This record gives sequence, structure tokens and C-alpha cells, in this order.
Amino acid sequence: MLRAPCSTDTLEKENNLMNNRRKRKIPYGMVGGGQGAFIGYVHRIAARLDGNFELVAGALSSRPEIANSSAADLGLDPARAYTDFSEMARLEAARENGIQAVVIVTPNHMHFAPAKAFLEAGIHVICDKPITARLEEAIELARVKPKNGAKFLLTHNYTAYPLMRKARHMVANGELGKIRVVQVEYPQEWLTKDVENKQANWRTDPAKSGIGGCIGDIGTHAYNILRFVTGLQTQSLSADLTSFVSGRKLDDNVHIMMRFEGGARGMLWASQVAPGCENGLQLRIYGEKAVWNGVRIIPTRCGIPHSDTPGSFLRGGAKLLWAKGCRCVFPPGTLKAIWKPSPLFTMSLLRS
Amino acid sequence: MLRAPCSTDTLEKENNLMNNRRKRKIPYGMVGGGQGAFIGYVHRIAARLDGNFELVAGALSSRPEIANSSAADLGLDPARAYTDFSEMARLEAARENGIQAVVIVTPNHMHFAPAKAFLEAGIHVICDKPITARLEEAIELARVKPKNGAKFLLTHNYTAYPLMRKARHMVANGELGKIRVVQVEYPQEWLTKDVENKQANWRTDPAKSGIGGCIGDIGTHAYNILRFVTGLQTQSLSADLTSFVSGRKLDDNVHIMMRFEGGARGMLWASQVAPGCENGLQLRIYGEKAVWNGVRIIPTRCGIPHSDTPGSFLRGGAKLLWAKGCRCVFPPGTLKAIWKPSPLFTMSLLRS
Amino acid sequence: MLRAPCSTDTLEKENNLMNNRRKRKIPYGMVGGGQGAFIGYVHRIAARLDGNFELVAGALSSRPEIANSSAADLGLDPARAYTDFSEMARLEAARENGIQAVVIVTPNHMHFAPAKAFLEAGIHVICDKPITARLEEAIELARVKPKNGAKFLLTHNYTAYPLMRKARHMVANGELGKIRVVQVEYPQEWLTKDVENKQANWRTDPAKSGIGGCIGDIGTHAYNILRFVTGLQTQSLSADLTSFVSGRKLDDNVHIMMRFEGGARGMLWASQVAPGCENGLQLRIYGEKAVWNGVRIIPTRCGIPHSDTPGSFLRGGAKLLWAKGCRCVFPPGTLKAIWKPSPLFTMSLLRS
Amino acid sequence: MLRAPCSTDTLEKENNLMNNRRKRKIPYGMVGGGQGAFIGYVHRIAARLDGNFELVAGALSSRPEIANSSAADLGLDPARAYTDFSEMARLEAARENGIQAVVIVTPNHMHFAPAKAFLEAGIHVICDKPITARLEEAIELARVKPKNGAKFLLTHNYTAYPLMRKARHMVANGELGKIRVVQVEYPQEWLTKDVENKQANWRTDPAKSGIGGCIGDIGTHAYNILRFVTGLQTQSLSADLTSFVSGRKLDDNVHIMMRFEGGARGMLWASQVAPGCENGLQLRIYGEKAVWNGVRIIPTRCGIPHSDTPGSFLRGGAKLLWAKGCRCVFPPGTLKAIWKPSPLFTMSLLRS
Repeated sequence: MLRAPCSTDTLEKENNLMNNRRKRKIPYGMVGGGQGAFIGYVHRIAARLDGNFELVAGALSSRPEIANSSAADLGLDPARAYTDFSEMARLEAARENGIQAVVIVTPNHMHFAPAKAFLEAGIHVICDKPITARLEEAIELARVKPKNGAKFLLTHNYTAYPLMRKARHMVANGELGKIRVVQVEYPQEWLTKDVENKQANWRTDPAKSGIGGCIGDIGTHAYNILRFVTGLQTQSLSADLTSFVSGRKLDDNVHIMMRFEGGARGMLWASQVAPGCENGLQLRIYGEKAVWNGVRIIPTRCGIPHSDTPGSFLRGGAKLLWAKGCRCVFPPGTLKAIWKPSPLFTMSLLRS
Repeated sequence: MLRAPCSTDTLEKENNLMNNRRKRKIPYGMVGGGQGAFIGYVHRIAARLDGNFELVAGALSSRPEIANSSAADLGLDPARAYTDFSEMARLEAARENGIQAVVIVTPNHMHFAPAKAFLEAGIHVICDKPITARLEEAIELARVKPKNGAKFLLTHNYTAYPLMRKARHMVANGELGKIRVVQVEYPQEWLTKDVENKQANWRTDPAKSGIGGCIGDIGTHAYNILRFVTGLQTQSLSADLTSFVSGRKLDDNVHIMMRFEGGARGMLWASQVAPGCENGLQLRIYGEKAVWNGVRIIPTRCGIPHSDTPGSFLRGGAKLLWAKGCRCVFPPGTLKAIWKPSPLFTMSLLRS
Repeated sequence: MLRAPCSTDTLEKENNLMNNRRKRKIPYGMVGGGQGAFIGYVHRIAARLDGNFELVAGALSSRPEIANSSAADLGLDPARAYTDFSEMARLEAARENGIQAVVIVTPNHMHFAPAKAFLEAGIHVICDKPITARLEEAIELARVKPKNGAKFLLTHNYTAYPLMRKARHMVANGELGKIRVVQVEYPQEWLTKDVENKQANWRTDPAKSGIGGCIGDIGTHAYNILRFVTGLQTQSLSADLTSFVSGRKLDDNVHIMMRFEGGARGMLWASQVAPGCENGLQLRIYGEKAVWNGVRIIPTRCGIPHSDTPGSFLRGGAKLLWAKGCRCVFPPGTLKAIWKPSPLFTMSLLRS
Repeated sequence: MLRAPCSTDTLEKENNLMNNRRKRKIPYGMVGGGQGAFIGYVHRIAARLDGNFELVAGALSSRPEIANSSAADLGLDPARAYTDFSEMARLEAARENGIQAVVIVTPNHMHFAPAKAFLEAGIHVICDKPITARLEEAIELARVKPKNGAKFLLTHNYTAYPLMRKARHMVANGELGKIRVVQVEYPQEWLTKDVENKQANWRTDPAKSGIGGCIGDIGTHAYNILRFVTGLQTQSLSADLTSFVSGRKLDDNVHIMMRFEGGARGMLWASQVAPGCENGLQLRIYGEKAVWNGVRIIPTRCGIPHSDTPGSFLRGGAKLLWAKGCRCVFPPGTLKAIWKPSPLFTMSLLRS
């Protein structure tokens, strides 16, 4: 069960805990997350937000030249800028001030090997979801004996949203009564067309993504948040996976009906072909007494022109807000960064 | 005119810029922001988010014991934990690796003196709003000759929201046409009753807050964002300030009508006695061609119980979400932290 | 395919059509809809809104005393206040100015017999949904040979919402592109507990409702609106029906996954045990090019008290707004009345 | 103080009251409301909704040919199709079954004369707002001695919204505590440009509208609803009226700050040049204990296309939904019709 590092009664105590910094930060490393990557910098922002971690080593790309220039960008000691994660695990484990944890943010098919290597080297692993590309790899990883009690942590960032935790608390408290029906959805629009770019390419390639396309990329988030908040155990399910875009090998739309232990029922919809949905994770829980119906945050809307022509309502969207000429201080995704609890999870486990 | 440090065409470039860390971070200090303070840690989070700054010195409280223990909490070198900001300005200016900037987050009446001291010591000042408690002090501050071209920056955090910048861009581009009407409001509820706590006390005390209560604390935000986005210059205005809570010396509700150069008109409402409004800054701009009507983000709502009794919709609110037993990773205010652009402004100025 | 009676280019023409009243109104009758009934008066309001119909006869209840006093309430000629629908069909068909149409608003198990009787008597039938309580009855009704070309019309009121018709128009026009995914839901909360009242009792009784509980009462609406707007034909489906309330014989929650001809996919959720949902029909259609994502209207919310205690948001709800002491001019359901197109459908058919 | 005709404890009683029709309907007439008019048919719909009134006479236009053909459209007895309201007042008063009430829906400058004529003829007057075009006329009208106790009723339709009445009830009950701040607005967009059409022309012509443009047309609604719900009495106010469109003689934007007896404060914004606002009446009331923050109903939105280009969100708007080819059963405005309480007010007064 995940525990956040701060538990406070008042704002002051929270302040103090946030401020409570170790004299010496926890050194950590990263595999993947180099130039052109997506989620790596989000993890780095989260680490900085926490304030107790310092990035000191990395095998930031499978391509040596990118690995090196990315490391230079990040100001890493060249001696700790690796092009090979195995070497990194070995050498960092041997160093006096070696990393205590490594963050793995590679494409799915490259989760298993580094995770195994670092666990066996006695270094905590913070891995982005999904655990691996194939079930067999996950089973094998579960059999790995970590050295020195090194831990494996999987980051499902939405579990850190205060509203999600509040919801879980309300469910556990019985405020909703016995849970009857759960509706969860996670629609996105970005693969509505056949898209060619670095982020799309590996996600739609079975060799890199695994056998799941949409279901692995975001279906896991939806399912995870359902389980995290309700605690329900799935008894059986019926799923309909579809590839809508012609030629696409992996699913881009997922419908699932679920039956849970205890009699509750649920539905899950995840999609990468839902126009109008930039990132619409939403969870609703109906109990005998009450509902939890979290508000979905859509922070990028603005504007309604005059309705001479059918009025239009500009959806900001990441691209629009960061278009040329419109200078903003943070790249898109920063909001997501706050909720990447990876360093914090590690911290809680390391402290305890 | 404020300029953000990053200007990019693509996500990759933004990534790189975010990742681009100086080998040596910019050392900065803080005046105020010790235990029990409100906005200090928000600035510290923002600095960490940026990643290019390091807090190395502080006069964190006017009370020596608090100043010292706060500094210890933050892991500062005891030699750079001050109890007197004048001494801090003097000694840091003299140090080889002295701070290059100082963040002032004291109550309003304590802005002027430190700002003057550090500017005269040649150290950039990043000051939270409002500039000073009294107009006379602001005028005097404007006359200060900073040593070595040290700059004074006032942090109005809402100007960093992407939507606000997008709005400004749209206005400047003429997408709304000539501006006719502006509606801005900033209602809060927290002083609806007579409240006794550290945050309320100085804000409602003329000796510490200045002559403005609500108008200074949040009216300034509303007015600032109106001016920042539209660029309009006020020609004349009519204001009605009220103190609703019995015995309160400063205004807790503000109504203003404005006339702008060029013929536009506007209304501004700021309030600290508006139940139901946790932090409702909202701006709407109506032009000849179109409207900009930004969506107000209210990220702390959840839940609707069964409507046997009048159904209720739980507003999370800061207190509710961080109540005992509901463990969350971030204290309230973290969201606000992203938008505290102080280090970034400094950065842009220092770089240029 | 349903066609609305008015088709206009301008507001003036619409005005004229609305105003265009027959010198002699179309006389109609009603079966069911007496005192204590639910949907009867909604049909009567719709008829009055249209302005071309006049209620002149009725067998308003199966209980003679209620039938008679209801008829008196409505100002009907006692000679045309019936206690037996068969007699009503026979006598009205024989009258010179007999009714031209009859509206059937009885509980489900009492749709078949009157429908058959009036069709065979040559009187148009406007029947509320579902057609019958059992499939066998519907099949048998389909075999009835109406006299004089009398028509059978089924009222699915949501098809009359302008937004639904606009959506259908957009789909037909290809504005969404080929349809890929449809999400429809219709959650209600009113049977969350075991409820005893006239409206609940027959709906939860298989003998009166038929074999479908929730699926028949509101699942039909959801499915109908999906088909009406998209025109999609269902190829196969997988459904999970549940009775959550202990002792309840009929389903009160419905989950359905659908596959449509042409490759589209859909999900349907209908529920009578969803707290917080007063009447939440919602349809979303995702195409290759665009989405239609109609806004759900919830016109009965108001108010947020001060958040000393967890703030609450009063959901008006029908009961709350019409509570004692709060005098309002219209009973709940009036809004629904506008969209009960029964008289209009008849009108269009009768005119053509 | 307005009283609605129905006061019920249960749904059944409400049903009965709605159903309770007089054997003989109340005959009423109309002045104005002929072809091309705007609000006339809304009143007629309201009358039909109520079910107790029948339109039997009219002087439907100042132009005789329009008056006559409009009357024919409405199926009026030619003998009661007038071209002169004075003649209508005289002749109807003399008839045995003459009208008992007349609805006046002419442009503002034509309210006074008919109102006076019918009151002096002993016929109840139901007049749309504003009372007259000029204050002098209103004062004179107040001095008229109606024959036979004929009443003058002014229809401010928004007072009939259940939410408004609920709000008033909550205020009167003390649920909000003492009222401190009121915010009301009524922005529209339809005169953002210089528009030429029948509806725009008289409203922007001082000779027909009176000295108030926007303030008279919709400012009155906003102010009326504020007073109706809160009961507050205005002590003083400061107003800024503007004509934005070049050449326009009357105001098209209104800002008002108000001070009320008892210390409350308020702001009012009404505008006809606010793009994006189809009909945005909104009232918010902040008391010592709680807020009433009614939800604004915007029933004409739909659709979000794919965000290749900046995504757009279609605002239906009246014109869009009733465009050629998109057949809908009701003209725009029907929703407003439900809340035109004119016949009901009359009814309550006539009954008492």
C-alpha cells in the first residue's frame, strides 16, 4: 500500500515536512529520458519538486551520441554518463557515492533488462508503467532476487492526485457505502490519424510496446486508478479491443465490462482515437449511499469567438499554447510532473 | 514587458531548454518564508522546478529562534543563516559566492526595507506582491539607485499561466479585435468570518498590510492580470471598498468600475467574504470580433452523495483534502508553485 | 424516419408555422394518465404546446372512480369519460366527431391491448415507450391490421431535442467522418434504495413492467437515441444486467458492449442506482474526423454554502424545488413536456 | 409580492392543479405579436401551457394588412381581428364574452397607450417589460384609475424559474444569512455588430425604445431578478453606460455599482456586445453564511472536432440549430415560453 511521505494536521507541519531536506541528497540515476524523450523530464521535475534527490548518472539513450549529449545537457559528470545500462548498474553499484535508485523511462520493451540489472546490483528501481512489454517478462522479473533488499516501484502517477487519494479515503471510510458500480474512462485523441513521430512509433509497434497498444499505454492507468481507489478485486471481465486506424497492428480503442468480488460491476473505456479528448481520465464510483464523481481537469481551454459563423471555442491543447510566438515558462506536461511521485515513493520506502 | 526564458517551436527544444542546466546553479537567498509562513515555500518549489537556482542563505524570520530553526530545516549553512536582513545583504554582497538574488516574502510592511538594502548591495530582488504597504514607500523605492545594475522584480504569479499568456498573445494579435469590455474577479471566502490566524492577522492589520486589505492582497492580482493580458491603460475609475466583518479595519470587498484609454470599459470585483469561492480568479475580455473567456480551474471538488437529503457536492478545499488520515504527497499551494515565475524572471534577466 | 412538422429557413416562418392553427383542432383521447399518473400530463402539456390538438375523451384509469374524477378534473364531457378502453375505442370510432388519435400512457403491461383495440378501430395510436411489456406482444401487435390506415407511433421524447437532431444532421452530413465509437449512458438515482411508491412499484414488478426493469424503462431511451442519431445497426452485443437492491426482481443496472455493422463500437450504461444522477442521459459520438459531445442539461442545481464544514452544493432536484413553501408555477417534468413530440408526430403523419 | 398559483406538497397535488381546468377558459386578447414579432408567440405558448386561457381577439400589428393576416393565421374570429387597439378595448369591453385580459407585446413606445385604454375599459393588462419607454409615461400610467378593479401586471419571466424562486425562498429563510454582496449579469452578443433587422431596429431607436437601450431591454431583467430574489432596496448607485457600436444612439453596455439599504453591495453588468454570450443571465448572492450561485443554463452547445486545427466547440445557437435541413419541432424561444408567467399571474389574481 502506497504511503505518502507527509502526513500532517496543519499547514505548518506540511510546510515543515516539505522543507525538511536532507543535508545530503539521495543520488539517483536515469535510464532513457534523453533528448526527444517524453516522460523522462517529467520524472526529473518531480524529483526536483521533492527536493531530496539529485540526478547524478544516466544511460539516457540507446544511441551513444544522444546518450552523451543528453548527459552533457543535464550537467552530469562525464564519468557517470553511460551508454550501456548494464555497465551503469555495475559501476554505480561499485562507487562509493553511487546512485541509490534508478528511474527507468525507456519504451516498454526496454523495461525488463535494466530493471533486472539494477535490482541485482542492489539499486532501487523506479519504473514507469507498464512494468514490461510482455507478461512473461513481468513474471520473470518477479522472480529476481534483489540484492540488499533493493525495491521495485512502479509509478502510476494518477494515484498521487489529492482527489484520488481523497476518494480512496472516502471509500475506505464507508462514506459511499458498499460499492455497486464503477465507471472509468481514459480517452485520448492523438492517434486518431495515422501518426508518425517518435512517441507514436514505438507505442504502435508490438516489438516495442508489447501486445497491448492503447490498453497498455493508458488502459493500465484507468484500471490502476479504479483498483487503487476502490480496492475492488476483479472476478471476471469481457473486453473488446479494436484497431480503428487502417494498418495499425495494436489496439487503439478498448471496451471492458467487469465483475468484481462482492458483486460490484464496472465499465472501462480507453481510447487513442477519441477526438476532442486531450487527456480525459475520469473515475466515477457509485455506492449504496453516495457517489464519488471526481471532476476532470481540462486546463487548456479558452476563448469563444463571435458566433457569426458557428461560434468556436478554442481548445488550447499543448501544441497551441506552446506555438511559436507564444512564450510560456513551462513545457506541457509540467502539471503531470507534480504527480509523478516516484522520488517520493522511493523516499517513503527508503526512510522506513 | 515580461519575457519568459523559453521560446520554442517544438517539444524537443522545450525539453532541451528545461534540461539545460548550468554547471553551477545561481545561488539565491530568502527573506521571510520561515516556519509558519505561507508563500515562501511556494517560491522555493518554483526555484526547484526551474532547476537552475539553489537556496544558500536566508533571514527567514524576524524572530531569531524561528529564523535559525527554519534555516536548519532547509539545510542552510549556519554561517549563512541570518537573523537580520541588513546584515545578510551586507555579508552576502561581500562573499565570494554570495547570493546573486534574494526573494522577499515577508508581510507587506516588511518589503520596503529589505528591497532597498539588497538593491543597494547590488543583489537582484525578487519581491512578492504588493511592492510595499504604502505608496510613499513604493515611490521611495523607485528612487533607489541599485548597485551594479541589480534588478527589482515583482512576482505576479498568474501572469505565468499558459492560458493568460495565450490570451495576451491573442489580444496582441488582434484576434479579439479592439477590446471593448473587460470583466475580472477574484473572490475568496476565507475571511467571511472573523478569523484569527497568522495569515489572517497581518493581512487585516493596517500596520502590516498597508491601507489596503482585500484590494491589496488580491485586488492587485486581478488588476495586474487585466493589464497584463489586455495592455489597456486605465483612464479613470470609481471604486467602492467595504469592510463587512464587524470590527475589521481594512476592506474585505472591492467593486471597481474602470474606463480605459481608447474607450474600453471594465469591472473588477475582489472579495474575501464570498462563500463558495476558494480562489476564483477569472478574466473575460470582449472585443469587437471575439471573446477570451478563460476557464477557471477549480481542482478540488469531488463527490455527490445520494439526494435523500438535499444532495451535497463536497468541495475538497485545501483543508479537506489534507485532513488527518488522508495522506497526500503535496501540501496545498503546490499548484500555485508552478506559476511562481520568480526564479525564471530573474533567470531571463540575468541571462540577457 | 422521423420528420418534424416544421421546416423553416427563418424565424418568421417558424413563427408562422407555430401560429398556424387549424380552425378545428384535432380531437384526441387518452388511456391512462389519470390522477397520480406520471407521464400523462406531460403528453397533455405537449399537446397544448403544439396548439392543434384537443383532449376530448379518456379512459384515464383502470379504477372507475379515479377514471371518472380524473375526467372531471380535465373538464371532459362525462359522456366521453370512459372506464373501459375497449368501450372507448368502439364508441369513439362510432362518433361523428370521435377522436382521431389516442395517447396510451399506461404501465407497460397495459400497452398492448389498448393499442390493438384502437388500431383495429381505425384510430391512430400514440404510445409511450416501451411498446409492450413482452416481445411476444410486440410481435403480435406488429401483425395487427389497422383499420383505415391508422398509424402506430412510439414516443421517444429525447429524439426531439434540438441538439439530438443537430447531431443526427451532422452525422448524416459526414461532419464527424465515419463513426468509430459511441458512448451512451442514462443513470438515475431514484431506485438506489428500496422504494415504495406508485411509480416505483409497477416498474419493479415483472408482471407490469415486463422482463426488463432498468433496461426497459431507460435503457430503451439510451439505445434509441444512439440509433436515432447515428443510424448505426447493431451486429452483436454483450450485456451484464444486475439487480443491486436486495429482493428486487428486475435489473436496476445495465452494462452493454456493442459491435455495429461497419466496424463501429459502443458502450451503454443505464442505471437506477446511481446516486447523484437525477436524469443524466448523455450521448457521445466519436468519428474519424470529429466528435459530437452534447452537453448534458442539469437544470436543477443551486447554491454552495460556506465551507466551514465540507462545503455543499445543493442539488435542487424535483422534490427540493417543489417543497412546501416554495411556490413554483410548474410541476417537475414540464421541461420534458416540450420534447414529448407525440402530437407533433401524429400531426406530421396526418398532414402528409 | 408575486404568488404562483400552485402550492403543493406532493407531485399528485401538482398534477391535479395542472389538470384542473375551468370548464370555460378565460378569453384573452393580444396587442402586437403579429407576423415577424418576437415575444408574442412566447406569451401564446405560455398561455397554452397553462391551459386555462384562450386567445380570442387581437390588434396584432400597427399595420392593418399584417394585423389581419396574423389574426387569420391564429384562427381568430374576423370580427375580433382589430387594427386599432382603442377600438378593440372599446368593443371587447362591450361584448358579452369579451376578453377579460389583454397581453401587450408591442415595442416599448407602444406600451403606454394600450395599457391605459384597456385599464380604463376594465380589462386586465398583462404587459411585457419595460412598462413604458419613458418615466413620464409610467408615472402617468400609475395614476390611471382602472375600471372594475382591472389589474396591471408586468411580466418579468425570469422570476418564474424554479431556481430563482428557490433562491428567494432560501434568502427569505435566512439560509444565506444577511446578504452582503450580489453579482448579477446579463450579457448578450447579438448587437456586437451594427445589425439591421426588425428586432434590432426598434430596440436601438430612442423614439421606440425609450432612453434606454441595453439597460432597458435586459438591464431591467438583471435588476428585477436581483430585487426579486434578494428583496434588497437600492440606496444609491453609480452607472456607466456606453455605446460601443459607431453611430448607435442608445447604450449597448451597462456597468452599475449599487449600495443597498442595510449595507449590502452589488454590481450589475448588462451588454449587447459580448461575443460568446447568447443569453447569459446569471445571479450570485453572497451572504454571511452561504452563497446562492445558480447555474446558468446554456442548452445550445455541441460538438468538438478533432484538434488538428485548434479544436472548435460548436455553439448551437438559435440560428444554427434551426438552419435549413435540420428539422426541429420547436422554434427557438420555446424554453423561454415556459417561464412567461403572464397567464398564470393573471390567473392567480383573478382567482383570488
